[in-house]
Amino acid sequence: MNLAPTDRGADGTVVPDREKDARDLLNLTALALGARDIASGVTPTLEKLVRDTAAGGSAYFQADRRLLAFRVRAATGEMPQTPGMQAVAAHGLPGDTPLMVALQGSASPLFYDDTRLSPDTLGFPELGVASLAAAPVRDAQGQLLGAFLMHTFEAHVWQREEATLFSMISSTIAALAGRLVAEEEVRVTRESALRALGLALEARDGETQGHTDRVTSLAVRFADRLGWTEQQREALRWGAYLHDIGKIAIPDAVLLKPGLLDPEERASMCSHVQAGVRFAHALQFLPPGALSVIQDHHERWDGSGYPRRVAAQAISLQGRLFALCDVYDALTSPRPYKAAWTHERAISEIRTQAGRQFDPALVEPFVELTETVSTGPGQDA
Amino acid sequence: MNLAPTDRGADGTVVPDREKDARDLLNLTALALGARDIASGVTPTLEKLVRDTAAGGSAYFQADRRLLAFRVRAATGEMPQTPGMQAVAAHGLPGDTPLMVALQGSASPLFYDDTRLSPDTLGFPELGVASLAAAPVRDAQGQLLGAFLMHTFEAHVWQREEATLFSMISSTIAALAGRLVAEEEVRVTRESALRALGLALEARDGETQGHTDRVTSLAVRFADRLGWTEQQREALRWGAYLHDIGKIAIPDAVLLKPGLLDPEERASMCSHVQAGVRFAHALQFLPPGALSVIQDHHERWDGSGYPRRVAAQAISLQGRLFALCDVYDALTSPRPYKAAWTHERAISEIRTQAGRQFDPALVEPFVELTETVSTGPGQDA
Repeated sequence: MNLAPTDRGADGTVVPDREKDARDLLNLTALALGARDIASGVTPTLEKLVRDTAAGGSAYFQADRRLLAFRVRAATGEMPQTPGMQAVAAHGLPGDTPLMVALQGSASPLFYDDTRLSPDTLGFPELGVASLAAAPVRDAQGQLLGAFLMHTFEAHVWQREEATLFSMISSTIAALAGRLVAEEEVRVTRESALRALGLALEARDGETQGHTDRVTSLAVRFADRLGWTEQQREALRWGAYLHDIGKIAIPDAVLLKPGLLDPEERASMCSHVQAGVRFAHALQFLPPGALSVIQDHHERWDGSGYPRRVAAQAISLQGRLFALCDVYDALTSPRPYKAAWTHERAISEIRTQAGRQFDPALVEPFVELTETVSTGPGQDA
Repeated sequence: MNLAPTDRGADGTVVPDREKDARDLLNLTALALGARDIASGVTPTLEKLVRDTAAGGSAYFQADRRLLAFRVRAATGEMPQTPGMQAVAAHGLPGDTPLMVALQGSASPLFYDDTRLSPDTLGFPELGVASLAAAPVRDAQGQLLGAFLMHTFEAHVWQREEATLFSMISSTIAALAGRLVAEEEVRVTRESALRALGLALEARDGETQGHTDRVTSLAVRFADRLGWTEQQREALRWGAYLHDIGKIAIPDAVLLKPGLLDPEERASMCSHVQAGVRFAHALQFLPPGALSVIQDHHERWDGSGYPRRVAAQAISLQGRLFALCDVYDALTSPRPYKAAWTHERAISEIRTQAGRQFDPALVEPFVELTETVSTGPGQDA
């Protein structure tokens, strides 16, 4: 991949070790492919590109979801010091830039030896870019994920070896970007599924959303304090967010009844746990820890809860932890049949219930958590 | 990467073109990275591996979601002709196979020169595998996605160059598998979000699910017949599945009322369109075509529908197409206030409504579709 034509082996001088060079690139490729983000994965390969070609600099631009702009996600080498280029660095290239439109329609990389001579590179001479190579980066469905560029400050005729190296690196970037975009899409899809279900529940029971947001936040902070891993906290967060989702299935006459429920209505209301577990099972991505919250959030330490009426360690830790958060928020919030309790009164009640309703080992850590929360960071500074 | 030590340049014989060899591998890597499935992406690289190393054969095993087994997804070269190996080809390797347990705990590839000498390769001598190399394939979070194996039929001491090539190819497989698994996860997550919302709606209105499944299937077949692309059909399918999702927000007194609705109740019922659009907006992955179905499925060609009361082409094509399917299914199904109409009576009514309720250009193609459906493929054979 070395471009210098120093292949003078016969007279005893150094022959460039092209095999080693190619192997280095393979190693860089392997490194890039395993990366956790675009910048760390792509930067070492961009550095190699700048080292081994005439390019003064190179950058990867990622498309935003609606292709309104392409933003710099990784860059190496020198960028032209022009106001226009500073604007590009800050705001990206608009999706209707002629170059981006050309890349949209192109299956392979495009090479411009002189940016003044092609309508595709309109605007680039003013940026200080004299010659340019640009590759589209697509996902498996052919959708444009981004654009990979290298440039020179003086006019330059791109060589075959430079084009080969550029193409190879662009395929590595495509693989990495494709995986990262798909992983991000998984996250967005999961969150939006939770959000849609949350909205559906809220539409039935207007009171719910504030409660859901508060207990979710409280539960996650509790888990954080207890040293749970990120994965465990994430499962808890999903479970907390969905803990009452089964209420969607409860008839209005019960769900919205202002007074006390009679035994039959109460049984109907309690069935929200099983209904919630059923909906949650349909969300195949929910980890067991999330299901545990939904299943166990009305169980009690002494076995007097529902629906399984299990006691102590037979209740999942997620369920025991969440029950504290859920009850604390219910006590300190106003309800049609009661005013909001003060923090002190709620904590006193929760302490009384240690070993009855609640896991006694969790009560004091929970009290400490709420003391931290009610003081609030910086409030006494 | 050529293993034969034929580096005899000085005496005039052929020097293996190692640079070209490495470049070939890079090209194979680029090809693999862009593949749409594991087998087509991985097979050419496996072939190179078998060509350039002592391996008699090579295979990629993919983990099922709960790691109960690893199943062959791509294989090349010769497999041992033993009954044990035939079982592996058919059923995969159990997740508790010692080799798989060893890979679970390993960050890098494992090399076994003699499978009789390591507890990790217990069972492999009986399969006819004398020496073995195995690499774990992980996603970015470190979860095991699969295992990449190569084997020989005679004992063999794996060489450094073979190990390098094997490691490089395993990183390519990891990148491809990581992307494909993430893309599959996106699909599963989307489907399960739809399923959970569908269950939530069904819990409120038991009648709904049969209707939803039938109109979704009918709409997709209609679009197929009209030559819509796969992406367009997918958007339609999601929209059809969710078209009544807003009914979750309608009070029981209206939603479940057995008799006719008074004007106020009717307005409440009609609000399910806006509520549905709101829920659907939260599902960020829904394409515009899906939202169009939800938004427009009660509009009418002559402008007398709701909620926007737009006419003709101002109604999305998705909405116009779906309205036909929705009404046809309502007519041919029993309701509390009417028996199911026959196919003939429903079609006659739909033809009467061409240019009133329905897009006249769609009515005859729809009639043809339902004639095909009601005859059914193969029923008159």
